[in-house]
Amino acid sequence: MIHFRPILMSLGLMLAVVSLTMMLPAFVDLADGNEDWRAFAGAAAFTLFIAGLLVLLNYDDRPAQLTVKDAFLLTTLSWTALCAFAALPFISLGVSYTDAYFETMSGLTTTGSTVLTKLDDLPRGVLLWRALLNGIGGIGIIVMAILILPFLRVGGMQLFHAESSDRSEKILPRSLELVAATAGVYVALILLCTLVYATFGMTFFDAITHSLATIATGGFSTHDASFGFFQSPPIEWAGTLFMALGAMPFLVLFRAVRGEPGALWSDEQVRGFIGFLVVVTFILALWLSISRELNFIDAMRMSAFNVTSIVTTTGFASTDYTAWGTFAVGLFLLLTFVGGCSGSTAGAIKIYRLQVAGLLTRRHFTHLISPNRIVPLSYNGRRLPDDVPFSVVAFLAIYMATVGIFTVMLSGMGLDIVTSFSSAAQALGNVGPGLGDIVGPAGNFATLPDAAKWVLSFAMLLGRLELFTVLVLFRPEFWRG
Amino acid sequence: MIHFRPILMSLGLMLAVVSLTMMLPAFVDLADGNEDWRAFAGAAAFTLFIAGLLVLLNYDDRPAQLTVKDAFLLTTLSWTALCAFAALPFISLGVSYTDAYFETMSGLTTTGSTVLTKLDDLPRGVLLWRALLNGIGGIGIIVMAILILPFLRVGGMQLFHAESSDRSEKILPRSLELVAATAGVYVALILLCTLVYATFGMTFFDAITHSLATIATGGFSTHDASFGFFQSPPIEWAGTLFMALGAMPFLVLFRAVRGEPGALWSDEQVRGFIGFLVVVTFILALWLSISRELNFIDAMRMSAFNVTSIVTTTGFASTDYTAWGTFAVGLFLLLTFVGGCSGSTAGAIKIYRLQVAGLLTRRHFTHLISPNRIVPLSYNGRRLPDDVPFSVVAFLAIYMATVGIFTVMLSGMGLDIVTSFSSAAQALGNVGPGLGDIVGPAGNFATLPDAAKWVLSFAMLLGRLELFTVLVLFRPEFWRG
Repeated sequence: MIHFRPILMSLGLMLAVVSLTMMLPAFVDLADGNEDWRAFAGAAAFTLFIAGLLVLLNYDDRPAQLTVKDAFLLTTLSWTALCAFAALPFISLGVSYTDAYFETMSGLTTTGSTVLTKLDDLPRGVLLWRALLNGIGGIGIIVMAILILPFLRVGGMQLFHAESSDRSEKILPRSLELVAATAGVYVALILLCTLVYATFGMTFFDAITHSLATIATGGFSTHDASFGFFQSPPIEWAGTLFMALGAMPFLVLFRAVRGEPGALWSDEQVRGFIGFLVVVTFILALWLSISRELNFIDAMRMSAFNVTSIVTTTGFASTDYTAWGTFAVGLFLLLTFVGGCSGSTAGAIKIYRLQVAGLLTRRHFTHLISPNRIVPLSYNGRRLPDDVPFSVVAFLAIYMATVGIFTVMLSGMGLDIVTSFSSAAQALGNVGPGLGDIVGPAGNFATLPDAAKWVLSFAMLLGRLELFTVLVLFRPEFWRG
Repeated sequence: MIHFRPILMSLGLMLAVVSLTMMLPAFVDLADGNEDWRAFAGAAAFTLFIAGLLVLLNYDDRPAQLTVKDAFLLTTLSWTALCAFAALPFISLGVSYTDAYFETMSGLTTTGSTVLTKLDDLPRGVLLWRALLNGIGGIGIIVMAILILPFLRVGGMQLFHAESSDRSEKILPRSLELVAATAGVYVALILLCTLVYATFGMTFFDAITHSLATIATGGFSTHDASFGFFQSPPIEWAGTLFMALGAMPFLVLFRAVRGEPGALWSDEQVRGFIGFLVVVTFILALWLSISRELNFIDAMRMSAFNVTSIVTTTGFASTDYTAWGTFAVGLFLLLTFVGGCSGSTAGAIKIYRLQVAGLLTRRHFTHLISPNRIVPLSYNGRRLPDDVPFSVVAFLAIYMATVGIFTVMLSGMGLDIVTSFSSAAQALGNVGPGLGDIVGPAGNFATLPDAAKWVLSFAMLLGRLELFTVLVLFRPEFWRG
C-alpha cells in the first residue's frame, strides 16, 4: 500500500521552499529595475498556492510512516514536480516550456547543460535563479544520499547506511542531525568559495552564482565562455579546489572540519578520488605540454581544471578542451563515466562503485585460478555486505545499457553518433558538456529537437536518482498491493 | 604448477594441423600457375618443422592431466602462436608482419576486419587462406566453448557445462564425442551453404570461400564490395539464413538434425536470438521503407542481411549501411555489442548473458520493492548455478570497461572518437566493421597506425577468448606455485 497523503504533503512542503527561493531573484530583478521580477513573483505565488493546497488537503495529525515504496515514489515525484514549477520563471524569457523544463532539470540535477544563449546579457534574476537551482539540487541530492538512497539499497548505496545493519521497513528520522551537519558544511563551503572567488577578482554576483554552481558540482555559469570568461589562473585553481571539495563525501568533510582532518585521508573513497584526479591530471598535462608545446605549469592548470570539472561532473570549461586533439577527446569521454564520491553532489558512476568493482574483479580472477579459495572482501575498513557486490556490478551494467538505449533513441531523432552517445553519457552522469558542435563544451543545447530535450531531461533524472529509484516505478509489481 | 610439456605438445599438434591446411592454398596457387604457391609451401614446411620439434621434445608416454591453469595458458598461447605462424604466407604479398598478423588474428578470431586492398585482384591462394583462417577459427572457438570455457567458468560459461555439476580440477576427454558431433554439423553446414551459394549463382570458388566465412561468422570476402559484389537478393537471403545458423549453439543444431527439430525452439537462447533478430530487422526495415522510401520487401532484405551480419558478428556488408542515416548508425553501433549464441562461432556479449542479465535485473527490482522475497532463478529449464549471476554481470561490466580503455588508447594514437570507439567495440566483439571512413563497412583497416593494429589484434584475442581467459594470465598469483 502506498501512503499518498504524507507523500503529497511532503511534496507541498518542498514546493513551498521552492516558492520562497523564487523570491530572491524577484528581489534582485526589482532592485535592478528589471520587469522580469513579475515572472518570479507570479511563479512564486502560483507555486505557493499549489503547495498550500497540497499541505492543507493532506495534513494528518498522526502521519503514516513512509515505507520503502513511498520513499521511491516520493523521490521521483518530488524531482519531477519541483522541476515543473521551478521552470515557470524561464517562460518570461520567451523560451518554450520544453526549454524551460530542460534548463530546470539540468539545474536541479546539477548537470549544467544549458539551452539559454547570450547568458552575459540576461537579467540577473534569471542568472541567480539558475545558480539557485544548482544550489538547491546539490543539497537535495546530498540529503537524499544520506537519508533515502542507502535505505532503498540502490546500486550498492547500502554501503553508506548511516546506521549499519538496519533492515526495518520504516524510514526513521534519527539521521536528521547528520543532515543538519551536512547542510552546515554545504553552506560554509559556498560562503568560503564565494569569498575566495571575490578575492581573486570576480564581482560579488559572479562569485556567489559561481560558488553555488561549484559546490553543487552543477556548472551553470553567468557567462557563455564559462570560466574562460575570467582568464585568471588563480580563479581556475580555486575552482579546481572547490569543485573537488564539492565532490567529496560531506559527512567525511564534516568530520574533518570537526577536528579530525585525518578522516579525509583515511577514507578509502576520498583517497581513491584524489589519487585518480592527480594521476589523470598529470598524464593529460604531460601530454598537453609535449603535443601542444605548452609550459608545464599552464598545462597542469588547464588539465587540472577541466579534468576535475568532468570527473566531479560539474561541467565548467575554461577552454574548448575538445580542440586538444584525439587523445583528449577520448579521455574526456571516458571521464564522463567516472564521477565523484558518494554522499556528495557529484553524479555518474562514482568512485566507490569503481573501487568495489575493482575488488570484485580481483576476487573473480582469484576464483578462476583457485575455485575453492575463500576471499573475504572489505571496503573502507568494513566487511562488504553480502548484497553489495551484485548491486554494484548490476548498477554498472544497467548504467552502460541505459547509455546505449538513449544513444539509439537520440540518433533516431537525427543526431549524429558522437552527439547522441556523448550527450546520453553526460546527461546520465549529470556532467554537462558532451562532444561535438552542439553538446560539446563550446556548444549549446538550444538547437536540439524538442524530443531530444525531453529524452535528455529524463536521462538526467535517471542518473541523479541512481537509475533504480526511477526505474522501479515502471515495474507492475510496484503498483500491486 | 603448470605442466609445460603437455601444453607445448598440444601446441605442436595444432601447428601441424595449420601447416597441413596451408598446403591447400599452395595447391590452388600451383594449379593457377601462380608463383605465390612457394610462400605457402615454405610457410607450411617451416611451421611443420617447429610443430615437429615441439611434439618430439615434449612427447610423454604418460602425459600429465591438464589443470585449470594449464587450460588457461594453453588457450591463450595456442591462439597467439597459431596466428604468428599462420601469418607467414601473407608476407609474400609485400605487407608488413604487423599487417600479416592483424589479418591472421582477424581471420582466426572470425572477426573479418581486413588490411588487404583490391581483394578481387589477389591470387586465389591468399583468398582461400583467408577463408580457411575463418573456417579453422570457427571450429576452434566452438570446440573451446564446449570443452574448455565452461570448465574455466569465464563470464558465466559454466551454464554450458556439458556434464553438469562437475567440479573436478582435471579436464577430462569424455566430451570428445560432443566435439565430433559439433564438427560434423559444422562441416555439413559449410557444404550445404556452399551448394546453396553456388546454386544461386556464385562461382564455386566464391561459394566455398564465402561459405567458410559465413558459417564461421568470420566475414572475410573475396571482393572489396563484400556481398554487395553479387547484387543478388537470393544470395543475400541465403547469407542471412546461414549467418544466423552459424550463430546458433551447435550442440542444439546437432540435436535438431538428429530428429529433434523442436530442440531449436525449446532452447531459450535460440528463441531469444531469433526473436531479437526478427524484431530489430522489422523495426529497421520499417524505418528504411519510410525514411528512404524503399519498397518494404527490399527494405526487409537489406535490413535482415546487415542486422544479421552484425548481430552474428559476421561482418559481411551488402551495402554501406552507415549511409542510411543517424538512426541506423546508432542502432548498428548498439548491435555491435549483442552477439549470437554461446556454443556457436559468434562473438561479442552473447544472447544468454543478456537474457541472464535481464532475469537478474527483474529480480533486483523485486528485491528493491520487497527485500525479503525469495526469487528462484532458472534459465533454459535449469536452476541458475550460484556463481553464474555475478560472473555474467561482471563480464558485462568488464567488457564495457575494456571497450572504454581501448577507446582511449586508440584515440591516443590519433584516431577520431568514432573510429576509436567503434573499432574497439567491433574488435572486442569480433564483428569486423566499425563506423567512419577507415573502419566502417566501406573502409579498410590498412591506413591505421601499426600500434593501433596491435591494439586491435589484442582486443580481438581478448574478445574471442571471453576476456578472462587472457586477463587471468596477467595476475601475478597465476604464476605463483
